Amino acid sequence: QINVRERKEITDGELNKKDNIHSKMKKNAVLVDGVILNGPITDSKAGEKFVEEACKIIMEEIIQKADDVTEKVCEWRAPETLKKLLDLEMRDTGESHQKLLQLCQDVIQYSVKTNHPRFFNQLYAGIDYYSLVARFITEALNPSVYTYEVSPVFLLVEEAVIKKMIEFIGWEEGDGIFNPGGSVSNMYAMNLARYKFCPEIKEKGLSGLPRLVLFTSEECHYSMKKAASFLGIGTENVYFVKTDERGKMIPEELEKQVQRARKEGSAPFLVCATAGTTVLGAFDPLDKIADICEKYDLWLHVDASWGGSALISRKHCRLLHAVFSKIYAFKFWLMWKALGTTGLEERVNRALALARYLVEEIKKREGFQLLLEPEYANVCFWYIPPSLRKMEDGPEFWQKLHQVAPVVKERMMKKGSMMLGYQPNQGKVNFFRQVVISPQVSREDMDFLLDEIELLAKDL
Amino acid sequence: QINVRERKEITDGELNKKDNIHSKMKKNAVLVDGVILNGPITDSKAGEKFVEEACKIIMEEIIQKADDVTEKVCEWRAPETLKKLLDLEMRDTGESHQKLLQLCQDVIQYSVKTNHPRFFNQLYAGIDYYSLVARFITEALNPSVYTYEVSPVFLLVEEAVIKKMIEFIGWEEGDGIFNPGGSVSNMYAMNLARYKFCPEIKEKGLSGLPRLVLFTSEECHYSMKKAASFLGIGTENVYFVKTDERGKMIPEELEKQVQRARKEGSAPFLVCATAGTTVLGAFDPLDKIADICEKYDLWLHVDASWGGSALISRKHCRLLHAVFSKIYAFKFWLMWKALGTTGLEERVNRALALARYLVEEIKKREGFQLLLEPEYANVCFWYIPPSLRKMEDGPEFWQKLHQVAPVVKERMMKKGSMMLGYQPNQGKVNFFRQVVISPQVSREDMDFLLDEIELLAKDL
Repeated sequence: QINVRERKEITDGELNKKDNIHSKMKKNAVLVDGVILNGPITDSKAGEKFVEEACKIIMEEIIQKADDVTEKVCEWRAPETLKKLLDLEMRDTGESHQKLLQLCQDVIQYSVKTNHPRFFNQLYAGIDYYSLVARFITEALNPSVYTYEVSPVFLLVEEAVIKKMIEFIGWEEGDGIFNPGGSVSNMYAMNLARYKFCPEIKEKGLSGLPRLVLFTSEECHYSMKKAASFLGIGTENVYFVKTDERGKMIPEELEKQVQRARKEGSAPFLVCATAGTTVLGAFDPLDKIADICEKYDLWLHVDASWGGSALISRKHCRLLHAVFSKIYAFKFWLMWKALGTTGLEERVNRALALARYLVEEIKKREGFQLLLEPEYANVCFWYIPPSLRKMEDGPEFWQKLHQVAPVVKERMMKKGSMMLGYQPNQGKVNFFRQVVISPQVSREDMDFLLDEIELLAKDL
Repeated sequence: QINVRERKEITDGELNKKDNIHSKMKKNAVLVDGVILNGPITDSKAGEKFVEEACKIIMEEIIQKADDVTEKVCEWRAPETLKKLLDLEMRDTGESHQKLLQLCQDVIQYSVKTNHPRFFNQLYAGIDYYSLVARFITEALNPSVYTYEVSPVFLLVEEAVIKKMIEFIGWEEGDGIFNPGGSVSNMYAMNLARYKFCPEIKEKGLSGLPRLVLFTSEECHYSMKKAASFLGIGTENVYFVKTDERGKMIPEELEKQVQRARKEGSAPFLVCATAGTTVLGAFDPLDKIADICEKYDLWLHVDASWGGSALISRKHCRLLHAVFSKIYAFKFWLMWKALGTTGLEERVNRALALARYLVEEIKKREGFQLLLEPEYANVCFWYIPPSLRKMEDGPEFWQKLHQVAPVVKERMMKKGSMMLGYQPNQGKVNFFRQVVISPQVSREDMDFLLDEIELLAKDL
C-alpha cells in the first residue's frame, strides 16, 4: 500500500539527490511502515567526496607534519577549555560535510602527536608509512578474521608472518597468534598454562581447587596482576620474585618462592619471565629460569612484547633465547616486505646505538645522572638542577629531586616542545625514561632532549 | 670515533636523499656501534608519496566500488592457488614502492568485500563514510586512550558519547566504557558482576569458594561460555535457560534454574539476558527477568550488542527496557554528528522496514518458507527446491533440506554474486539468515537475494 502524499514528499525532497534511481523509483516505489525502500538512502558520491577531502586533511595535518620537529608535540588545553573549543554535542540533525571536516581538523589539532619525533612519552616508534597503509587498507576492507571463507588473504598473511617469526626464534615448528597488545597476550598465556596444568578447569572452574600460583619478577608488566584477577586466580597468588640491581629476576629467589608455594600446599603452575621490562628494559636470565621450570614442572611464558625485536638483530639477539612477540599480522607483514629483514635489523641496531649515544652524552653533561647502565633501549636518568647540586646526599635531597621530573614534564607539555615519561621505581625517586625506537629520531633529537631538560629546569 | 671509510659510503649513498641535513651531517657525523646517528633513516618524502598512492588505490578499489552491485562480493580461490597468486614471502631486502602497491592491489582484489551491498554473511552494515574517516584519523594519530595527558580529545569524545547513550537508555546517571566488541563486553560484565558479588575474589581468586553460577538463554551469544571458561568460572557453571518458540528466555524456567542452583549449594550471581539474539534476533523479556533478579539478588546484564540500536528508534525502542551498547567512541561520534539522531533513527526504521518487506516477499514466493515471524532485523528462512516440494514431511525431507543451504552457499561464493550465512539451530535444519542493516541495501537487493537463491538452487 503506497500512501500517495508521503510518497510525493519524499520524491520531491530526498529523492532528487539521486538522479540515477529517480525515475525508476517514481514508477515502482515500495513503502513499508512509512519507509520508502527503493534504492540506497546514502548518497555515495557525496560520501566518497567526503572521504577524499578528509584524506587530504589527514595527509596534510598528520602525515606530512609527522617528521617536522618545528611542530608542537601537543597543543595542551585544560579539559574545560578544550570542551568549549570542540563542538562535541550530538544533535537531532546531522551536520554538513564542511562542518564535519572542520571538526576533524579540530580533533587533529588538539590531539597529542604520537608520531612526532620528540614524542618520547611511551614506547612509540614514530610514523611508519607501511604499517599505516596496511591499517588504512584493513579499516577500509573491514574484515573479520574468523575463517578462510570471510578472510582468505589475511589468514594466509598471518600464517606467513608467524612462520617467519618462528624461524627467527630458531624453532623447527610452532604456532602463534597475533593479539591487540601485550596485556591480552599475557592473559592468553596464563589461560594456556592453566589449561596445560589442568584441562578440567575449562569446564569445572577453579572453585574447590587448591590455589593456583604463578611467579613473575617485581619488574614485570602490570598486566600480570590484571590477568590474575580477571582469570579468577587472584592477585595475591602472583608471587613476585626479587630482581637484581639491573631489574633482572634472580633465579635463586624464584626457586625459593616455588618451594614456599609448595610448602603452603598451593599449586604452582607458571613462571612469567620478561624479555625487556617496561621501565628499565631488563632481560630476565631465561636459561636459568627454564632450568627451574623444568625441575618443578612449570610452564614458562616469556613476555617479549618489548624486548622481542632484538631477535631480528644478529648483533643483539643474544639478549633473548626463546620468545614470542605480538603485533597484528598484516601491518607487520607490509612493513617487513617494505624494509626487508635487513631493514628491520638496521632499525633495531640503530635504536640501540642511539640509546648508547644518549648514555654517553648523559655521562658527559653536568647535572645528568644515569640510574643504571642500560642493556637495551631504555635510558633511565635523573636531572639534578643547579640548586640541588651542592646538597648533601640524604632524604631531603631525594625528596627534592623527586619533585623535579613532574615540574619539567608539566612545562614541556604546556610548551609543546616534547613529551617524555617519568616514574619512581623500586624505592628510587622520579626519574626520566627515554625509550629510543623511532627511525625518525636522530642524534640531534637526543641533544635536543638534554638541552630542553636543562632549559626547562634551570631555575629549579 | 668516526670511521672515515664508512662515513664516506653513507654520505654518497643514503645521505644524498636528504639535502636539508646533508651538509650538516658531513661536518658533524656521529658513529656509534657502526651506526651513523645523524638525521632520520627514513625518507619521509618517499614515505608520504607512498601513502598518497596507496590512498588512491584504497579510494578507487575499495571505497568507490563499495556501492557497486556489479562488482563481485568475493573472488574466491582455494588456499593453495591464492598462496601462489600472492607474493607472501618476507625477504632480507625490502621491496620497491611499486611492488608494494601491487601487493596492496592483490590483497584488495582477493579479499572478501564486506562493504558490498550484497554481503549479507555476518552483521555488517555496508560502508559508512563517517566512521571510516574516523578510523583513518585514529589510525594516523595512533593515540593510546590511557589518560587525558596523552589522549585529551578522544577522552572527551568518549565521555560525550556515553553521556548521550545514557540519556537514550533513560537513566538519570550512569557510566560506561567502549569495547572492541561484544565478546569483550560480555567478559567485562561477568567480571563486574563477580566483583559486585564478592570483591575479595579479585585478590584471593576462586579457589576454595563455592561454585559461582550464571544464567543465560540457550540462544545467547557464544562468548558467554568463552568468558566463563576464561574467568575461571567454568563452562558447566553457565546454566542455560530454555527459550520459547521465538527464541526468548522463559522467565519461569529461569526461576527454576536459580532454585536448582541454590539447592545444589552453589552461588548464583548473574543473569545475562539478550536483547537481539544473533541467530533469531529475539529479545528476552527484560521486565520479568529483572523481577527475578531482584527477588534472588542477582546482577542483571543485558547483552544488547545487536539489539541495542533499536533504542534510537521511537518506533522500535519498546523492544528494550534497559540496555548498554558498545562501539568504539570516536567513529560512532563522527557518524552521529554526520547523521544526527534523526538520521540514525531513520536507519534503524528503514532496516526493520526492509526486513518486513523481505518477510512479505518470502510469504508470496513458492518454495520459500519462514522459520518464524521475526520481531527484529533477522529474517530466517528455508528455500525448498522444486524436487523437494512434493515430498512428504518426515525425516528424509528435513535431511535433504539440510543439504540445500550449503550447496547454494558454495555456488554463490564461487560465482561471487553475494554472501549469505546459514546455520542449523535448536533442532532445526540448515536455514538462511538474512540480517538487514546496511543503508546501501534496498528493496531491489532483497528481490535479488530471493531471485539468486532460486537461480542457484533450481536444479537441486
